Amino acid sequence: MTENNNTEMPVMNFGDWQRDRVTHIDWVAGEFLPKPGREPKRLTGAMRYATTSGGKRIRALLCYAAGLVTEADEKTLDRSAIALELVHAYSLVHDDMPCMDNDTLRRGKPTVHVQYGEALAMLTGDALQTEAFYSLSMVENPVVAARLLATLARASGVRGMCGGQALDLAMVGKQPTEAELLRMQSMKTGALIMAAVLMGAQSGAWERLGLGAQAGLTASADAIGLAFQIVDDILDCTQDTATLGKTAGKDEKDDKPTWVSLLGLDGAKTRARELHDRALTALAMVEADENVKKGATDRLAQIADLIIARSY
Amino acid sequence: MTENNNTEMPVMNFGDWQRDRVTHIDWVAGEFLPKPGREPKRLTGAMRYATTSGGKRIRALLCYAAGLVTEADEKTLDRSAIALELVHAYSLVHDDMPCMDNDTLRRGKPTVHVQYGEALAMLTGDALQTEAFYSLSMVENPVVAARLLATLARASGVRGMCGGQALDLAMVGKQPTEAELLRMQSMKTGALIMAAVLMGAQSGAWERLGLGAQAGLTASADAIGLAFQIVDDILDCTQDTATLGKTAGKDEKDDKPTWVSLLGLDGAKTRARELHDRALTALAMVEADENVKKGATDRLAQIADLIIARSY
Repeated sequence: MTENNNTEMPVMNFGDWQRDRVTHIDWVAGEFLPKPGREPKRLTGAMRYATTSGGKRIRALLCYAAGLVTEADEKTLDRSAIALELVHAYSLVHDDMPCMDNDTLRRGKPTVHVQYGEALAMLTGDALQTEAFYSLSMVENPVVAARLLATLARASGVRGMCGGQALDLAMVGKQPTEAELLRMQSMKTGALIMAAVLMGAQSGAWERLGLGAQAGLTASADAIGLAFQIVDDILDCTQDTATLGKTAGKDEKDDKPTWVSLLGLDGAKTRARELHDRALTALAMVEADENVKKGATDRLAQIADLIIARSY
Repeated sequence: MTENNNTEMPVMNFGDWQRDRVTHIDWVAGEFLPKPGREPKRLTGAMRYATTSGGKRIRALLCYAAGLVTEADEKTLDRSAIALELVHAYSLVHDDMPCMDNDTLRRGKPTVHVQYGEALAMLTGDALQTEAFYSLSMVENPVVAARLLATLARASGVRGMCGGQALDLAMVGKQPTEAELLRMQSMKTGALIMAAVLMGAQSGAWERLGLGAQAGLTASADAIGLAFQIVDDILDCTQDTATLGKTAGKDEKDDKPTWVSLLGLDGAKTRARELHDRALTALAMVEADENVKKGATDRLAQIADLIIARSY
């Protein structure tokens, strides 16, 4: 018992909420993946290694935050959040392999193919992708499950993440136009960030949102996704390997097109700031919906702050 | 108009049915995959290359055949069949890569990594897996979609195909026991064959089948799946590369455990025959169900004949 007679719970500050959600998703991932020591041991070990080794969990955070907009239940959000993090984890495992980016360090640890060999790394990525969809099969309401399935599949395949990676491959050594870079990024990283916001909201009463609110969520996710990539490019050229937990300056060394090489460092920072404003304006549209509670988009706005403010 | 006054359609012979279904699934795959020339061109091209280049379509055939047991509608069966063929196609693309089997020939054509390079081959496999789940998201009835999703995800991930491949990797150069080989095979190839039969039946009125019929379908799929692998091993050591359309004698050369190395050629043939009998007995259990029409399992029995008879 406390002396506080308000029926409203006191609101957690953002830092505490973020830590709470990250701890929670790490726990959910640990519970969901095959237990350590389960056969085939090396595969299940590598799957856990790739998934439970830290990371900012931005996609899970966006998913939980967007779930507040439609009052989604925690269990369904867990299924969505783990699916998103697994797709992200699988893409990193495959991206790091010698035939792609040939990276040896990720979050301060050897990458999966360095630790387990290339054959097992490929299988690990494959199995993590499957686990993502397996997670959605456990959503209790089949209408919600089917909706989440459609969103995740569209965002992660040839129309989204994989397609963007193929465009990225085709761009190495070329100097793309801004439109080309935008298109590649919006598929390669933007699509899954967008899916994180949509799946969070679709885990709840998505069908009760008006078209304006749905469009606002989409627009905010679009701005956050692009800003996220721009900030990543900025950090890649301004921070060192120890701070990043992955090899710094790699984009430049690989002659990869980035927002910094296209717009310059100051131009990239200005663009990130503009996208931040755009995200907040779009979230105001969401709160204008009569079925959305006041303050329901606060966490999304705070994540936009978190992502974008780290660059300027 | 014909002079035949029977309300029953004349029954197609098996060869015609098989050709009809293979033509149909090839058409469905062609319609479903991103159109040729669509961006990202190399990825969409490689996806079509990997999926539409022939193949026996055993998994699609099993799916359509099992759909007859529960009177599933054609559109849902198409979604299931294409999902199964896409998972199979993705697994072949990744299996053929240098870090796995390092195979250069598949169905008489260069493998995807030979044709498109390793990085794109990896992405192609990844995107094909996603497309498989995307196909299920288009099933109209969400209850059926969620059921199919669960079956496919369980069969193709760490609990099934990917897990079996990891066990296979761990076995190279060792002489496994029969139980170990059985476990590996039942996951690596058996799980997806089983999923083909289950998804066919689950595309229709699965919930109306009695437990005996459900168990009979499962048992027949189990026998067919194992027999399929044994027959593959037999053919690998008795046929030449031109007939197989893939490099013959590769298992022996790679020192991979096979049913022929374990049981001998005659022993393997005997085992295939026994599994054939077991499959037919199990299908009789299915037809004993009051909700299953007489003759509804005929196509499944004919596929068992087709798969197993090619070896003896």
